[in-house]
Amino acid sequence: MTLTPEQKAVILKQINSTSETRRATVPRMEEHLYKAYEVLDHGFVRAIDYMGDDNAIVQAARVSYGQGTKKSRDDAGLIRYLMRHWHSTPFEMCEIKLHIKLPVFVARQWIRHRTANVNEYSARYSILDREFYIPKEDQLASQSQHNHQGRGDLLKGREAEKVLEILKSDSMRAYDNYESMLSQKNQEGLARELARMNLPMNIYTQWYWKTNLHNLFHFLRLRAESHAQYEIRVYADEILKIVADWVPAAFAAFTDYRLDGVQLSGKGLDCIKRMLAGEDVDAKNSHMSAGEWKEFQALIS
Amino acid sequence: MTLTPEQKAVILKQINSTSETRRATVPRMEEHLYKAYEVLDHGFVRAIDYMGDDNAIVQAARVSYGQGTKKSRDDAGLIRYLMRHWHSTPFEMCEIKLHIKLPVFVARQWIRHRTANVNEYSARYSILDREFYIPKEDQLASQSQHNHQGRGDLLKGREAEKVLEILKSDSMRAYDNYESMLSQKNQEGLARELARMNLPMNIYTQWYWKTNLHNLFHFLRLRAESHAQYEIRVYADEILKIVADWVPAAFAAFTDYRLDGVQLSGKGLDCIKRMLAGEDVDAKNSHMSAGEWKEFQALIS
Amino acid sequence: MTLTPEQKAVILKQINSTSETRRATVPRMEEHLYKAYEVLDHGFVRAIDYMGDDNAIVQAARVSYGQGTKKSRDDAGLIRYLMRHWHSTPFEMCEIKLHIKLPVFVARQWIRHRTANVNEYSARYSILDREFYIPKEDQLASQSQHNHQGRGDLLKGREAEKVLEILKSDSMRAYDNYESMLSQKNQEGLARELARMNLPMNIYTQWYWKTNLHNLFHFLRLRAESHAQYEIRVYADEILKIVADWVPAAFAAFTDYRLDGVQLSGKGLDCIKRMLAGEDVDAKNSHMSAGEWKEFQALIS
Amino acid sequence: MTLTPEQKAVILKQINSTSETRRATVPRMEEHLYKAYEVLDHGFVRAIDYMGDDNAIVQAARVSYGQGTKKSRDDAGLIRYLMRHWHSTPFEMCEIKLHIKLPVFVARQWIRHRTANVNEYSARYSILDREFYIPKEDQLASQSQHNHQGRGDLLKGREAEKVLEILKSDSMRAYDNYESMLSQKNQEGLARELARMNLPMNIYTQWYWKTNLHNLFHFLRLRAESHAQYEIRVYADEILKIVADWVPAAFAAFTDYRLDGVQLSGKGLDCIKRMLAGEDVDAKNSHMSAGEWKEFQALIS
Repeated sequence: MTLTPEQKAVILKQINSTSETRRATVPRMEEHLYKAYEVLDHGFVRAIDYMGDDNAIVQAARVSYGQGTKKSRDDAGLIRYLMRHWHSTPFEMCEIKLHIKLPVFVARQWIRHRTANVNEYSARYSILDREFYIPKEDQLASQSQHNHQGRGDLLKGREAEKVLEILKSDSMRAYDNYESMLSQKNQEGLARELARMNLPMNIYTQWYWKTNLHNLFHFLRLRAESHAQYEIRVYADEILKIVADWVPAAFAAFTDYRLDGVQLSGKGLDCIKRMLAGEDVDAKNSHMSAGEWKEFQALIS
Repeated sequence: MTLTPEQKAVILKQINSTSETRRATVPRMEEHLYKAYEVLDHGFVRAIDYMGDDNAIVQAARVSYGQGTKKSRDDAGLIRYLMRHWHSTPFEMCEIKLHIKLPVFVARQWIRHRTANVNEYSARYSILDREFYIPKEDQLASQSQHNHQGRGDLLKGREAEKVLEILKSDSMRAYDNYESMLSQKNQEGLARELARMNLPMNIYTQWYWKTNLHNLFHFLRLRAESHAQYEIRVYADEILKIVADWVPAAFAAFTDYRLDGVQLSGKGLDCIKRMLAGEDVDAKNSHMSAGEWKEFQALIS
Repeated sequence: MTLTPEQKAVILKQINSTSETRRATVPRMEEHLYKAYEVLDHGFVRAIDYMGDDNAIVQAARVSYGQGTKKSRDDAGLIRYLMRHWHSTPFEMCEIKLHIKLPVFVARQWIRHRTANVNEYSARYSILDREFYIPKEDQLASQSQHNHQGRGDLLKGREAEKVLEILKSDSMRAYDNYESMLSQKNQEGLARELARMNLPMNIYTQWYWKTNLHNLFHFLRLRAESHAQYEIRVYADEILKIVADWVPAAFAAFTDYRLDGVQLSGKGLDCIKRMLAGEDVDAKNSHMSAGEWKEFQALIS
Repeated sequence: MTLTPEQKAVILKQINSTSETRRATVPRMEEHLYKAYEVLDHGFVRAIDYMGDDNAIVQAARVSYGQGTKKSRDDAGLIRYLMRHWHSTPFEMCEIKLHIKLPVFVARQWIRHRTANVNEYSARYSILDREFYIPKEDQLASQSQHNHQGRGDLLKGREAEKVLEILKSDSMRAYDNYESMLSQKNQEGLARELARMNLPMNIYTQWYWKTNLHNLFHFLRLRAESHAQYEIRVYADEILKIVADWVPAAFAAFTDYRLDGVQLSGKGLDCIKRMLAGEDVDAKNSHMSAGEWKEFQALIS
């Protein structure tokens, strides 16, 4: 990560200035505010602001006036109930704002989640920094032979070296040329909105991203999952840690019902019932396709 | 407004408990938190939580690390620029949560603004209170003769009296019958989800409503406007006062460009140019329809 | 259902006029267009328009130019894969527009699904008809003793009669008074936007409702489910029949993975694995709460 | 544009197969369906499907059963009224689906409009083609001296040549290296999801993009506007032509009220009133900032 001394000073100042507020406040979440948690080689996740806490979910579900008189154990039970039965609106009552620095190809995956508010650094208006994502060797994987959109074994030896050389040298050359097209020494200088098109998609961008807890959980379920691309999963993992401190009861319910939970089809449920009744269920009598049966087997073993 | 002593005590407790926070905090907004501002005969608006301030808009527009070093005068100018050019995403970085008590027919208008998070009191689950909106005499207007969805002159004398008698007695009878259908004395008691259908639409409901500043401005532009129905406009007016204290620079820009501003058609702009050039423009040579010309005349006079 | 002869004639005309189109067309869906399928005592569901078919889902998932050369069996497999792995965007490529007539209290539940386009009949602008939902005796249920938002046994004898009398007479009286407040014989006539507040929530309204297939499936999953209120479930059931003819492959996948499928928590999955391994799992060693264990038991039996 | 013979054959087949439908059909829109309208050097816009027509807007606004008996002149007047008063929901009743091929840096701007359904070609799953946007010389503009996100004069002579050389050679080298990293001759072959990061943002991607008419108008207002970047504006311009044939009355209203129309601030309106009354209004007594006054002057001259 490359924070300038000026940026570090700004962040330190943010961390050190506090105010009094009547709003719902979560001390363990306050600890995270403004800090830049490193992700990949130049990226970060920073929590900038939050609204609400576990109690805000309960308060909205009950449309009650205040904090309620119920015990916190009941509240956790209610939150689990809401999660189990897909009552999503109470979770929408919590909101979080993050400042993210991430490679463009990751940003392009991320933005497909449309139910968030986003302000991205503008390369029409400003000049991007010379920062590119170069994978570590332990992430330099080959194309999976089984999964069209997955990774297989790690590349080895000379092939891995060659890939890294390409990524590094193409990044540097593209940036050199970007700068030289922009430069106004003895020339007009190409418009920024045009020059940026020469940059490869491993360059870093950044944005403010704000979303509610329900939509964040949806994002995390898909992106913290093992099939998500590694380079976005590491961001999701970092966000998970923050959420665990922010809304611990909601996080626990989310973990049990979504991250650790599974969706069974009607066919799958039927197979389980038959298996529990002692029947010998196999691919053939499961009425599933080969792919589904394989996924089902993995699920219950 | 009918807050019970218990509710008042809960609100007082909320107002009196403060925490330390690193988050962006607006002292004048803090003053509003939790207070129940009366609207109509039993309704209220309560600000429960907020995220961000004027600076959060600027910070997102610049994707800057901190509060920035720019002068607040420049910030207000930037906010005006963003508003003028419909750059809506920075305004989405501020969020507000309100607790609203309102008649059902108002709630039905309100909910048409879909870009908000809502949790409404459930009459499937709970029993509604005996609280109905009965208009004051100075709001008892006749149907407009000109505008299919507007009000004309006030009703007078006996007719006004009769309307009030009807509204009051039908409300009371409906509620008596609601209660008697629910009652389990010597009977099973009708399911709540069915009994509620007997209640008229002037009964009060309540909800938690959370939205971002951009969508809130859109709501306020349409609902604080003179053509909006009085019974929703009074809620919008109360929210306007809160927003003015929360994000004063954004509010000033919104007032100038949206509330006080107007949309001119190409034809309207052409007429103004011709009028400024000294030409005598009338309904006929304006190329507008009769209705448009009338609205245009009202606009510039 | 009360369609006037004029409305019937309009519908017949719609059914009988056809055009040639290059668009994706589903003959079995064409059969449904414009027809008013009766729901409850005065309501209906009418399919007015649709965009796309099963193939449009596949086409978007593959971002292919045309209909593709793949066999339809492969297409159904792909659709199942998309549904199983929560790839929702291809399902968003199909759109449906419905004309629905429904009681206001049902409309208020329905509108909580915000991701649809809605135009509702305006009682500010027009006068509502004298049509109210009166439940049939086989739906006149008592409040459930176990479920705060559910129904228990049917009301019997005199109690059922009394409820029906109340619902009918309150509806009629409210409508009589609505009319008398509006009436302009020898009086000004109360504004429509005010008079409507006297009407109970079993009065019928109507709207055009347009949504994409992904959001429709979400709606149907929640509203065609056994815990949904009967009065909205009957609408969902009617829509299910239409969807089955419109996009049969997507509908089959939806049925298996969502309607017939279940969500297992991590704890639930763990219990199943232990049970399949022969362990004796009970409420205590399941690590679930009493409520969860009960739901889990119901799931697998 | 580079359509393969196979793609051309598929498109021709789509154009030539028609069905009978009861749905609202627009003959002039049918003419556009499936055709690839060229944009930039390799891009295109293809209309794939549509739902609704001008009448569908009117039908929804009136919540009427059929096509209505009103004259088409009244319908156009109603559509103008809806547009003038920001009644957006009736316009949401029309939907369009487009197949777009566009450079990645344009796609990144485009996707910021979140209220649409999108399925993009996946470079995790598939291999991108060797197609890059290289601007024509008449678009090779320098950075504007006045507008941070705009273009100034055209680059001349050697500088223009140099820029084109860079863009071309960097594109080709990046693609050669992309291929060589993927290639599996005598090597594992890097995972596609990683290799793609080496590609610059002028490479072409494609997607299916579906949106309703209200959101499309919002997109077009911002992107067909003179301040929009040229490379996205040419797509908006092509879409405008299609919309003009699809919903001519709505398009005419949109043109007058949005494209040709302007938003006046309260201050601006006040200045116009004073000017019309004969007052000499200047920058100083306008109460506007220098920037606003300049924009205001441009507006009315």
